[in-house]
Amino acid sequence: MLVVMQHDATAKDVDRVVSIIKEMGYEARPMPGAQRTAVGLVGNDGRVDASRLEALPGVAQIIHVTQPYKQVSREWRAENTVVTLAPGVTVGGDAVVVIGGPCSVESEEQILSAARIVKAAGGNALRGGAFKPRSSPYSFQGLGKKGLSLLARAGKETGLPIVTEAMDSDGAQMVAEVAACIQIGARNMQNYSLLKTVGKMKTPVLLKRGMAATINDLLLSAEYILAEGNENIILCERGVRSFDPAARNMLDLTAIPIVHRLSHLPIIADPSHGTGLRDKVIPMARAAVAAGADGVLIEVHPEPDRALSDGAQSLYPDQFTQLVGELRAVAAAIGRSIPPAKSGTAQL
Amino acid sequence: MLVVMQHDATAKDVDRVVSIIKEMGYEARPMPGAQRTAVGLVGNDGRVDASRLEALPGVAQIIHVTQPYKQVSREWRAENTVVTLAPGVTVGGDAVVVIGGPCSVESEEQILSAARIVKAAGGNALRGGAFKPRSSPYSFQGLGKKGLSLLARAGKETGLPIVTEAMDSDGAQMVAEVAACIQIGARNMQNYSLLKTVGKMKTPVLLKRGMAATINDLLLSAEYILAEGNENIILCERGVRSFDPAARNMLDLTAIPIVHRLSHLPIIADPSHGTGLRDKVIPMARAAVAAGADGVLIEVHPEPDRALSDGAQSLYPDQFTQLVGELRAVAAAIGRSIPPAKSGTAQL
Amino acid sequence: MLVVMQHDATAKDVDRVVSIIKEMGYEARPMPGAQRTAVGLVGNDGRVDASRLEALPGVAQIIHVTQPYKQVSREWRAENTVVTLAPGVTVGGDAVVVIGGPCSVESEEQILSAARIVKAAGGNALRGGAFKPRSSPYSFQGLGKKGLSLLARAGKETGLPIVTEAMDSDGAQMVAEVAACIQIGARNMQNYSLLKTVGKMKTPVLLKRGMAATINDLLLSAEYILAEGNENIILCERGVRSFDPAARNMLDLTAIPIVHRLSHLPIIADPSHGTGLRDKVIPMARAAVAAGADGVLIEVHPEPDRALSDGAQSLYPDQFTQLVGELRAVAAAIGRSIPPAKSGTAQL
Amino acid sequence: MLVVMQHDATAKDVDRVVSIIKEMGYEARPMPGAQRTAVGLVGNDGRVDASRLEALPGVAQIIHVTQPYKQVSREWRAENTVVTLAPGVTVGGDAVVVIGGPCSVESEEQILSAARIVKAAGGNALRGGAFKPRSSPYSFQGLGKKGLSLLARAGKETGLPIVTEAMDSDGAQMVAEVAACIQIGARNMQNYSLLKTVGKMKTPVLLKRGMAATINDLLLSAEYILAEGNENIILCERGVRSFDPAARNMLDLTAIPIVHRLSHLPIIADPSHGTGLRDKVIPMARAAVAAGADGVLIEVHPEPDRALSDGAQSLYPDQFTQLVGELRAVAAAIGRSIPPAKSGTAQL
Repeated sequence: MLVVMQHDATAKDVDRVVSIIKEMGYEARPMPGAQRTAVGLVGNDGRVDASRLEALPGVAQIIHVTQPYKQVSREWRAENTVVTLAPGVTVGGDAVVVIGGPCSVESEEQILSAARIVKAAGGNALRGGAFKPRSSPYSFQGLGKKGLSLLARAGKETGLPIVTEAMDSDGAQMVAEVAACIQIGARNMQNYSLLKTVGKMKTPVLLKRGMAATINDLLLSAEYILAEGNENIILCERGVRSFDPAARNMLDLTAIPIVHRLSHLPIIADPSHGTGLRDKVIPMARAAVAAGADGVLIEVHPEPDRALSDGAQSLYPDQFTQLVGELRAVAAAIGRSIPPAKSGTAQL
Repeated sequence: MLVVMQHDATAKDVDRVVSIIKEMGYEARPMPGAQRTAVGLVGNDGRVDASRLEALPGVAQIIHVTQPYKQVSREWRAENTVVTLAPGVTVGGDAVVVIGGPCSVESEEQILSAARIVKAAGGNALRGGAFKPRSSPYSFQGLGKKGLSLLARAGKETGLPIVTEAMDSDGAQMVAEVAACIQIGARNMQNYSLLKTVGKMKTPVLLKRGMAATINDLLLSAEYILAEGNENIILCERGVRSFDPAARNMLDLTAIPIVHRLSHLPIIADPSHGTGLRDKVIPMARAAVAAGADGVLIEVHPEPDRALSDGAQSLYPDQFTQLVGELRAVAAAIGRSIPPAKSGTAQL
Repeated sequence: MLVVMQHDATAKDVDRVVSIIKEMGYEARPMPGAQRTAVGLVGNDGRVDASRLEALPGVAQIIHVTQPYKQVSREWRAENTVVTLAPGVTVGGDAVVVIGGPCSVESEEQILSAARIVKAAGGNALRGGAFKPRSSPYSFQGLGKKGLSLLARAGKETGLPIVTEAMDSDGAQMVAEVAACIQIGARNMQNYSLLKTVGKMKTPVLLKRGMAATINDLLLSAEYILAEGNENIILCERGVRSFDPAARNMLDLTAIPIVHRLSHLPIIADPSHGTGLRDKVIPMARAAVAAGADGVLIEVHPEPDRALSDGAQSLYPDQFTQLVGELRAVAAAIGRSIPPAKSGTAQL
Repeated sequence: MLVVMQHDATAKDVDRVVSIIKEMGYEARPMPGAQRTAVGLVGNDGRVDASRLEALPGVAQIIHVTQPYKQVSREWRAENTVVTLAPGVTVGGDAVVVIGGPCSVESEEQILSAARIVKAAGGNALRGGAFKPRSSPYSFQGLGKKGLSLLARAGKETGLPIVTEAMDSDGAQMVAEVAACIQIGARNMQNYSLLKTVGKMKTPVLLKRGMAATINDLLLSAEYILAEGNENIILCERGVRSFDPAARNMLDLTAIPIVHRLSHLPIIADPSHGTGLRDKVIPMARAAVAAGADGVLIEVHPEPDRALSDGAQSLYPDQFTQLVGELRAVAAAIGRSIPPAKSGTAQL
């Protein structure tokens, strides 16, 4: 860490900084410069809490040299983490996985139908919300536990592993009984109680980026999970808040190569929430794969016009089938592939 | 709600929209215009979930005319909600309250000393975190239950009501035993499980705006609490995320008059988190009061240079005392006042 | 346009709105609803300036139904605009063009070398700045007129059409003598004097999106150019400002399918400025093509380590060659292609 | 400047950085740390262009210690710059100036009437646009030169100095003949040709912050003007772009104390554009003064309901009069004052 002093900082100001650094248990190295002095803080093996130094007299700026996270970083572990959702369905290796399904589980017929569509199109896992975080208390909030048992049934029939969201610690336990992967939604990315709970579990976690979370924040939230012992983490770019109302969110695909450089964890993209508009989902899913995403999360509904939530961003079944084909072509163009659909009982 | 059709939408497209609106149980009123047709949806007494309509063929745009929230709106209730923290300490009336204290409870000595400083300076309530949401799992996370009992003691000694944060449902119950007001932090503004929990309680709630929350989002989160029955809600502007690293957050003081127009709930400002810089806290606290805030939340620490968290934004004791004086002058300039400190046992 | 009245607006308030709409020369259609009245403004063939209505007593909100732009919209013209930079190099048709070159023209040797690299790799046009807008007055500002003549020479030798920036009206005239396309930079996207100047010229214009410009703003700025008579406009997504310092800008690739739906104008992407980081340029250029971009603008420098500006985002020559190959594969995967390099005199 | 190396950077990587720093003419000081090495660049008396170093193998990050601007900084000049608009009307000293007037000059009657209102209410200068930058080419663009002569007449009659915008170099010369202060609008904050032109003039310049400009960017644009020799610069916070549509812009009042710390230049606030809503202008103008602004820029129109532009944010005459009174009270509360209206010929 570097404490940059103001141009007119006095020797006494510098001495005070040095003595507080020592009091904090680190070594202090003053470096006088042409315009101003900087004091290096050395000896830390992680990020130092700088708030004691930040507003001392004569201090202009604190500069962190060490990243605030550890175990998620590629410096900590050089090889990619590969998360297994089911035999043959892994995230973080060469394959690009396609996770499809409706926003919410609405009925037995709907989720079974959706699962068959995903399976038939060549998708690798089934998504669908049983617990739904909705901005308005008056919107449909999901079927809850009943939704989980419907998901279990759809998974059993098609052989697709299940990805579904948990909104609190109790929900996480329930989800883990049914799902191959617990999703933490964007609004809960910094719900630390929930992060600690799933960190103590073994089930893989899909951690979505918060609406105003920097990539650094996302990695720190993943660090909460890793710090508790769960290494099976998949990150997910799902769009951030922006000033432009043209789309529901701004899908930040550059996050994909940035995460790949900083961390060993896999990252997938969710162009459905990332754009909020059906006809943008297809080109942006292709773009995500071209940018190097380890998978995509796509909303598809048997009848989008009758969906209880997010109908406008759900693909029609034939669009989803076409999309999987296009993604195969793009993946092949960059030397990757989508795992083949396994034989199963699914049929439309 | 208005469904605006594309310029080249066909009569069949319009008919489809009309029939789906009817199927949803509302009345549809097509309005042909010079350039395009719009279809009004009438008969709703709240916001309609538009996702079924949004991506139909020929639909250009959905326009919501009705606000998505109800009970928080000034149209629902014209008079200001006044929340009582303690006898003589109310938020939402003519008075402007000053809530001061350290970021975290660190020790008995520290919190007692801070409480005495707040009391002596003329502050009206004591803040201090026992459960701390921190971006990094390696930062100080608060003293937990022990912190609550220290807060209780400081409150008892000084007579100041306590405001402190809860991070999950269990924590909310613990906080309610000690505090006059449960704080929901910015990161949990859309933690709906937690909002529902505090909605079922009677204790006043201080709901902080999320880092990327629109004012509409903030009001919807308050609606979650109100919908469960708890009417004692204080909103809090604490800065939002911006592109400019010059300050920790961008304090959006315009939110204050906007909320006052849209809602009957009181709103206070937190210039400490809103700026993150000690020497900006004083002018911005003054500005908040001049903008019409019903109170301010200010971090003050007996020894900011030794604080375990947020030291750089905590005021020195004498700065806090000076600030309360300045706030009295600004409040008086706009016809409001800070409640007088009640006599008590506090002494420095 | 729809004027939404407040819940408690009086009949007199509504009448006032109606009479002002009539005074403005339009027809007014009041529509009483369950919760509130709305007044439709009909008869406009473009966007109405709503400021007279917006703050009248009883008015809650103004809703624009008509887009504020005309000639740039796809409703105005259904077929794609195809802009010709040189024989066989067109933007907006099936082909995906690659425009490469250094940030700035630095010397004869540098720009000739860069042009040969672009040509040999299969690029379709040469970029390079002679007039450079730089945030700091102390940064290298470009070679000016001399830079233009060096560009002309490089273009002549390789047969590549030239794309280069103009910063003011005088500069635009100079640029037009040499270049196939005048670039308007992000900082000048709303420099209306400059937009009007290039609107009166015949030379194609490459209009970059401003750092905080919505897609609507971008289209309105293009409308300024079209309104003066110049139809040869290429839009360019180059990243917008965001809260995340992880990249220089946030490249908003969703803008590509959005623009394609709203407008007949072609749009390309600039992943060099859009990310600011060399190792992110390659994946994001691939992603842009997969998202449907009509071209990419890529910085490549013979010796990036010695570049006078933007060295960190310039590709090394062999990276550029590899990139063009990858872009061919991605374009093919979605049924498009990069025009073949024409035979010329270029050699490395 | 500090070049932070990656964890696994080799000695060869470090040597390469050192040798390039030397080649650039500076001194290099490698500093090995527990986790990684950093290389200090010493000997620069301003910001170094880091692009040559930023993407070298093994480089993790570049950290600028020196600010990129010089002459605008308080380190360069400790005392406040005081800009004189007219005898007794100075910006940057103890006084807080009120600059009022309509968005656009519309007619002789309108601007004379507005000037008299400003004068009678105790305002200190008259604003009004003759050249108007408008997002749409179809909106009213101002009266141009005729508008300037009407402004001159209104200034002469009332004795109020004139502040009005120039959009290009020709316009700046015309404006300077009439106005006490040339306004550079937000959209032209980085129009460097225009900044250089006004930098060569003597007339004071009011430089508005761009919609996505950091405070650093704003200071760098001011540096362009100062670097050409014009020291009479007033900065203006007028709201930045945000994700929340609740207001037209997000008024960043914290910019005021931040600029006051970093620079000797005065800064005023424009709550009219900063909020875009008439009933928010009054509280936010008070807040700006409480935050320490050296003045406010307020839109007032004799008949806002008939304004040709920005009617919704223009105050009614009696609101303006009331506002000046409130601002006097707030200014007094923090030990400042609004200069008394000078006697003149104005009468309502």
